[in-house]
Amino acid sequence: MNDCIFCKIIKGEIPSKKIYEDDKVIAIMDINPVVDGHVLVIPKEHFENFYEISDEALSHVYKVARILSKDIISKLNKTGITLQVNYGYNLVNHFHLHLLPDFETPVKEMEVDKVYELLK
Amino acid sequence: MNDCIFCKIIKGEIPSKKIYEDDKVIAIMDINPVVDGHVLVIPKEHFENFYEISDEALSHVYKVARILSKDIISKLNKTGITLQVNYGYNLVNHFHLHLLPDFETPVKEMEVDKVYELLK
Repeated sequence: MNDCIFCKIIKGEIPSKKIYEDDKVIAIMDINPVVDGHVLVIPKEHFENFYEISDEALSHVYKVARILSKDIISKLNKTGITLQVNYGYNLVNHFHLHLLPDFETPVKEMEVDKVYELLK
Repeated sequence: MNDCIFCKIIKGEIPSKKIYEDDKVIAIMDINPVVDGHVLVIPKEHFENFYEISDEALSHVYKVARILSKDIISKLNKTGITLQVNYGYNLVNHFHLHLLPDFETPVKEMEVDKVYELLK
């Protein structure tokens, strides 16, 4: 999609703090984190939302979420993590999975750049 | 699992407010809703968490979430919905997907029984 911010990030036309990339997805730091280590896992193919994403792409997003979640919990010394998908009130209509460490007791304490240094 | 609350609900040994059932999953009203229409989609097979769930079961959970989400949004007159999986701080260690209508602006207004009447 020409006007999609996430497609532009994937193509490198807009900068991002990337912590993971493979042939099918990228994972970046959320620009407006609600907790420390707020990461987005984004399929490279443009799916509007969770109604549009293919089973194959969804499986891969979860596979990457499994890898990153243990890494995030370990490196940021967290208890757990929340995986979140929004529908109907997204700012960007390109499917993405939020990884929200210790979301149940949200306390944002660290600077994003410090978190990025730990995760990248 | 003999001591798993969700396994007991699936077997009918513990009552629940069920809004959907097929051969692979059930969907029930959360007993402690954080928003109106807080529903849990639970695979019948016991998977401890999102590291354990099979791709096939996860796909089916999302398939049912797609069906239920449109229904919940429509019947409860909501804007959207949030799908949420927790890891590391679950009260019940049997994989479940939270459906949280209008979670971004949480306001719990209706009695659970009234919501259940609309959704069942």
